[in-house]
Amino acid sequence: MTEKYFWLDKEIQEMLPEIIATRRDLHKFAEPGWMEMRTTSCVVNELKDLGIDAILGKDVCAADSRMGLPSKEELDRHAEWAMKNGADPDILQLVKDGFTGAIFTLDLGPGPVIALRFDMDALGVFETQDVVPKSVTDGVMHACGHDGHTAMGIAAAKLLYKHRDELRGKIKFIFQPAEEGVRGAKSIVAAGHLDDVDHVLALHIFPHNGSSAKLRLTSPHGRGSLATTKLDFDFRGKAAHAGIDPQNGSNALLAASTAIMNMHAIPRYGLEPTHINVGILKAGTGRNVVCDQVHMEAETRGGSTEANKYVEEYAVRVAESAAAMHGCSVDIEVKGAAPVMNNSEELVEMAKDLGVEVEILEATGNGSEDFAYFAEKVGSALYMQLPCECAAPNHNSNFDFDESVLATGVELICKMVLRLMEKE
Amino acid sequence: MTEKYFWLDKEIQEMLPEIIATRRDLHKFAEPGWMEMRTTSCVVNELKDLGIDAILGKDVCAADSRMGLPSKEELDRHAEWAMKNGADPDILQLVKDGFTGAIFTLDLGPGPVIALRFDMDALGVFETQDVVPKSVTDGVMHACGHDGHTAMGIAAAKLLYKHRDELRGKIKFIFQPAEEGVRGAKSIVAAGHLDDVDHVLALHIFPHNGSSAKLRLTSPHGRGSLATTKLDFDFRGKAAHAGIDPQNGSNALLAASTAIMNMHAIPRYGLEPTHINVGILKAGTGRNVVCDQVHMEAETRGGSTEANKYVEEYAVRVAESAAAMHGCSVDIEVKGAAPVMNNSEELVEMAKDLGVEVEILEATGNGSEDFAYFAEKVGSALYMQLPCECAAPNHNSNFDFDESVLATGVELICKMVLRLMEKE
Amino acid sequence: MTEKYFWLDKEIQEMLPEIIATRRDLHKFAEPGWMEMRTTSCVVNELKDLGIDAILGKDVCAADSRMGLPSKEELDRHAEWAMKNGADPDILQLVKDGFTGAIFTLDLGPGPVIALRFDMDALGVFETQDVVPKSVTDGVMHACGHDGHTAMGIAAAKLLYKHRDELRGKIKFIFQPAEEGVRGAKSIVAAGHLDDVDHVLALHIFPHNGSSAKLRLTSPHGRGSLATTKLDFDFRGKAAHAGIDPQNGSNALLAASTAIMNMHAIPRYGLEPTHINVGILKAGTGRNVVCDQVHMEAETRGGSTEANKYVEEYAVRVAESAAAMHGCSVDIEVKGAAPVMNNSEELVEMAKDLGVEVEILEATGNGSEDFAYFAEKVGSALYMQLPCECAAPNHNSNFDFDESVLATGVELICKMVLRLMEKE
Amino acid sequence: MTEKYFWLDKEIQEMLPEIIATRRDLHKFAEPGWMEMRTTSCVVNELKDLGIDAILGKDVCAADSRMGLPSKEELDRHAEWAMKNGADPDILQLVKDGFTGAIFTLDLGPGPVIALRFDMDALGVFETQDVVPKSVTDGVMHACGHDGHTAMGIAAAKLLYKHRDELRGKIKFIFQPAEEGVRGAKSIVAAGHLDDVDHVLALHIFPHNGSSAKLRLTSPHGRGSLATTKLDFDFRGKAAHAGIDPQNGSNALLAASTAIMNMHAIPRYGLEPTHINVGILKAGTGRNVVCDQVHMEAETRGGSTEANKYVEEYAVRVAESAAAMHGCSVDIEVKGAAPVMNNSEELVEMAKDLGVEVEILEATGNGSEDFAYFAEKVGSALYMQLPCECAAPNHNSNFDFDESVLATGVELICKMVLRLMEKE
Repeated sequence: MTEKYFWLDKEIQEMLPEIIATRRDLHKFAEPGWMEMRTTSCVVNELKDLGIDAILGKDVCAADSRMGLPSKEELDRHAEWAMKNGADPDILQLVKDGFTGAIFTLDLGPGPVIALRFDMDALGVFETQDVVPKSVTDGVMHACGHDGHTAMGIAAAKLLYKHRDELRGKIKFIFQPAEEGVRGAKSIVAAGHLDDVDHVLALHIFPHNGSSAKLRLTSPHGRGSLATTKLDFDFRGKAAHAGIDPQNGSNALLAASTAIMNMHAIPRYGLEPTHINVGILKAGTGRNVVCDQVHMEAETRGGSTEANKYVEEYAVRVAESAAAMHGCSVDIEVKGAAPVMNNSEELVEMAKDLGVEVEILEATGNGSEDFAYFAEKVGSALYMQLPCECAAPNHNSNFDFDESVLATGVELICKMVLRLMEKE
Repeated sequence: MTEKYFWLDKEIQEMLPEIIATRRDLHKFAEPGWMEMRTTSCVVNELKDLGIDAILGKDVCAADSRMGLPSKEELDRHAEWAMKNGADPDILQLVKDGFTGAIFTLDLGPGPVIALRFDMDALGVFETQDVVPKSVTDGVMHACGHDGHTAMGIAAAKLLYKHRDELRGKIKFIFQPAEEGVRGAKSIVAAGHLDDVDHVLALHIFPHNGSSAKLRLTSPHGRGSLATTKLDFDFRGKAAHAGIDPQNGSNALLAASTAIMNMHAIPRYGLEPTHINVGILKAGTGRNVVCDQVHMEAETRGGSTEANKYVEEYAVRVAESAAAMHGCSVDIEVKGAAPVMNNSEELVEMAKDLGVEVEILEATGNGSEDFAYFAEKVGSALYMQLPCECAAPNHNSNFDFDESVLATGVELICKMVLRLMEKE
Repeated sequence: MTEKYFWLDKEIQEMLPEIIATRRDLHKFAEPGWMEMRTTSCVVNELKDLGIDAILGKDVCAADSRMGLPSKEELDRHAEWAMKNGADPDILQLVKDGFTGAIFTLDLGPGPVIALRFDMDALGVFETQDVVPKSVTDGVMHACGHDGHTAMGIAAAKLLYKHRDELRGKIKFIFQPAEEGVRGAKSIVAAGHLDDVDHVLALHIFPHNGSSAKLRLTSPHGRGSLATTKLDFDFRGKAAHAGIDPQNGSNALLAASTAIMNMHAIPRYGLEPTHINVGILKAGTGRNVVCDQVHMEAETRGGSTEANKYVEEYAVRVAESAAAMHGCSVDIEVKGAAPVMNNSEELVEMAKDLGVEVEILEATGNGSEDFAYFAEKVGSALYMQLPCECAAPNHNSNFDFDESVLATGVELICKMVLRLMEKE
Repeated sequence: MTEKYFWLDKEIQEMLPEIIATRRDLHKFAEPGWMEMRTTSCVVNELKDLGIDAILGKDVCAADSRMGLPSKEELDRHAEWAMKNGADPDILQLVKDGFTGAIFTLDLGPGPVIALRFDMDALGVFETQDVVPKSVTDGVMHACGHDGHTAMGIAAAKLLYKHRDELRGKIKFIFQPAEEGVRGAKSIVAAGHLDDVDHVLALHIFPHNGSSAKLRLTSPHGRGSLATTKLDFDFRGKAAHAGIDPQNGSNALLAASTAIMNMHAIPRYGLEPTHINVGILKAGTGRNVVCDQVHMEAETRGGSTEANKYVEEYAVRVAESAAAMHGCSVDIEVKGAAPVMNNSEELVEMAKDLGVEVEILEATGNGSEDFAYFAEKVGSALYMQLPCECAAPNHNSNFDFDESVLATGVELICKMVLRLMEKE
């Protein structure tokens, strides 16, 4: 790395207190996926002075491609909460029906088109950490660092805007809703926002693993994350008295049990990992009533997009056959999905030369991440893991991170943008 | 039937408004099994002037033989409710911890010992009928006529007490808690109250089936009701991330699904009916978490007490083996039980001659009733069905009955007592 | 019973050595169902001198309604055997392709039409008894007394023919193939032979149960035997290497296992007995090959024809759904069937008055018998059990019976015929 | 590679007709695992003139560690066959009871100890190829090239013996029985023959994949083959009449079906491949008999020895629990096993420099090979794949290979020995 971006470090350090303050505000007012109403409002508020056009509301995500939406009641209830907790009423009007998220485009004329993805949503975790101001909402917590990602996105936008005269091309700052449960990314891709993009980047805070590296990347020969599909199954049968006339019922719990056994027994796919899990099941109304309703939540994973598709399609066939077997019907809904994610070789090579220690993971990833939809669409993609000191693992009720990582993240993503623009 | 009990009819007709008023009061303040606190208080209040000894509180039911008790919290909450709704504080003190029910003994010297069983509990049904004053508690309803049974028991006690000089022997008026779910009878038998009893009787209101009979009896060669056991299963496994290390979990839902399939597949028992049903299941915390907790509610039924025992023991073995198979444990709790019920030949013959039209059912019963414990203990037993005009089937949210049946019931049970005492 | 048939007893006693000789000959040359070639030849030979018309070959059974036929190879092989063992070549030509059985009609002008059913087939049992001349064929044995039934049928035909001048109406002597596995009766009914019949009778030798009765009858209010269906299932999948690419196979053994579990788990039918059993399964070619072929033999039983049909149809749906679930197909073939059998009240009453001790069974039967098809068609039906001293239970390798029962059987069935003819 | 071993190529070319003749003789008299009686006799016969000590009979394999032995009857029958087909009677006496195989040790004083493994057994395949003289035994065929391996072993022994003056150290020529089904290697290791070995080598003929390489090696960072265990399960229950008293039986087929479903449903092991397959099942005696006997053949595979062990132990627990669930017992027998196989880095590097084109496989192997036991024991191990023109894939009924590969194989393995001895 040349020294030409010497100014970056100093400017970021000056901004750090502000970045931290934003992160803490977002942390306190944590919002789950598709309900990032106050969060979106905050992002817009921070960036509105730049005078660059924001894409908001129904223009962000293709409505039909959004997965795992909360119910109308939940959205309405949360809109009231957002209003009480400081969301801008005009923005709220745009985002309240499951249309959260925002895209800011800094257009600097001919040159490469670069997209930066920042996710914004919190998790359904009961917070126990007590360093950062706690979430005001019981059972909703930023336990995966997306508060930090959003704060870094705001900072990067301000910084790159400030230096816009030194840049050429176009930068899209994508503030994505509903990454948890891999629900949001697909609908942004479906809306066409990645169609003209040459390179796409994202960053994510993780606990370091003892290494002192500041940047961690999956080898382009490895696999950054597993493909996955999140499926809900609702079996419908017919109730009957279990002692008097069970033959007049249609036993949805027999159908579901058969489905569970056979889903877990789906034959393997060569040497590829192929996971399936039925994690939640709720059934029935009385011990002496033939069960007529089963709700079941499951997920599949695959070491390749094809392997995951194989398991998903097999699971669907299992559910439909098990329902037919017992005279029941089944509704199946996809609540989230992501393909396999891969870093591109070119961007990994470029990132090795950013002036910080880089760790390359040869081992393949076992999680899932819907940034994979962006990567799949664009091809030239980089998922930048930011290893840092954490109080607990991601998704843990005690999760927290060393906020100095926010400076590192802004620096690294800005440097990648500068290098990509300079290169062409 | 001779005419010697001519006075009965007239006296009962005079009492009918009072019987109806009692039934309506009980209906309005419906209480579920083991929580008949205000109901017990009402019974004691009605009968206290007779000056006969009441057995109350811990002396009614053998504590360890009570099945399917509500939680301490539920009992405490309901005790507050009962206090606010008119229960006598002294009686409430005795009955509040799952010790509802009362036994009144009218001891008239040497002679036959006769027990009369009246059940008192309501059901978890959301009432929709609008003729009788509705239950003040949403989701608790006298939808099986036990309000009427209790009112008839009070009336019979008053009437027989009034005519005590004409009688000899001993009459036990047993007001039983928690018949629904077949939970209470066993503990009364276990407390020894039936040890000295020669004959035991019960009555139950049912819709007529088109016949004009006033009394319906299962043939002594048939079977009055099925044996049954109500079982709860709680599987415990170990949670793990379904995508990262499922092998470190113990999948309680695989154990439960295997148990469900195999319970329903238990081989038949000769030509006897052997039913099993898993009616309720709740499992899991997240779709990507190996399920570590399953709660399951089931019941078995058998055409004989042996057949039911066979299914119950097989089901327990299935659950334990299924748990072991997947490295899980399982807690199994009996929440209710009853043997097969049979009318004795002698009492059926006697009942045919009570002066009303009697219908004898040759077909075997397909329900369950914990009066079976009394019948099994005493031998000489009669379960008197009172067919009448009903607004809907038992257990239906719109259930109601023609209250003139209350007079018929009091008359028939008193006549049976008189005949049994006269006979010896 | 009047004394007018006094001659019967004497004449039968004179015939007994001949009846016994016939039975022993049939026992020695035992033939399984649809292969009673020498047996049919023997019957025809015995009765040909009577000069009454015999229905033989393709006119006996409706070809398409025959169930559970042996393969062409087995039939051909057995025809060779029959030729070597004394079958008449002309008759063999008629019966050799699964067209065994014979019907002789004695037409005596106007009057009642009575059919008598005698079954002829042996079982796949390795004989160990050593009193009667053993079966010359290892693994084929008359272990259910059908040799005796056939011998009685021949004797009854001769006797009634002899006394034809005293009779009026029509008697059909039906020598039925393939009763074992309930395979043959349906096709005789389908051929129309029962269309004009007023009463139908059969007899069967069984061990006595300690009673001294000479005739045992199921009460017309009971059930003589269970309805049943015998089903073969052949699952076809696709083989693949279990270690390399199991996803390219279609696992027929997973389909079959799912089918077995769910067939046994079919919900009960009210209080009716509903049995199902998968008794035989053969699957697969190698431990490291995804199984592509499963052959499975099962049966259903029901306490009513409807209950059996319910189980049969449910089992078929289970098999088809389980196959579809795993990308397999399944061929299902009915190999045998019978409805529930009931004695008619009138004939039971008549049989009580035949001059021998009669035992009426109130308990319901738990076996199956395809005479049920005749009974269902005709209505006025009687299945006469002949209790006698037996060396072992039916179907046992050591089965044998006291041959004096042959005289009793001929006497009883002839008396029934005489009474039925006399009555009208 | 230096030119110092220039003589090798010429001498091997001179020997080639003899090597081919040996291979064809072994092909014609193909023998399955543990029955390589004539084959062992042939090897001994070929090498006896060298005057080096042969280990034979019970000294080759630790008797108790042999897996998947044929029955005594099969061994005896085959010994007769071997006698008739030219086996030496003295050697036959030593090897006939499942003690086939031979080890020849060429001891040349101090220096490295090198073991060379050659497998000898044929497969249960019906041969259809018609180039090489066909197997004289229907259903037994050298369809995996072990005939060639043995012929190469004989040639290598002769050649290295001839040049023994140029060598130092010790060479063990191990002719291993029963590699198919991974049954033999473990018992040779258990007998201690690898205890003093420094390096171990094996070779195997495979179809080339379009590459022109003469040697193919799995990368030392990859995995040469999967760990595997071959298991037989025998469930024992209790027969009963399925219609009359199924409750008196113990249904072994319900136990087996439950086991099959749950074995296939064993949770995955991280991202490791974990295969299981139940490939063969035989059950039952009659459709109306509760099944009392099930024989089941299965295998497990794992991407690591630990992953395979996890599946194996889980499968055993599943079988035992399924048996207990239905009142059955189960006998479980290990019929074959192998750990994961890895090439050592040092030997792969050495092999790259043998003067032929080498192909390195990065992808991981999906087969299994019991040479893995040798490799696991010794550490410094190399499994040399010999790609060549083949008529069909291995294990196919039409398998055959271009015999010029025999020269290549002898050359490569001798060169490896020479290099290893020279090095130290």
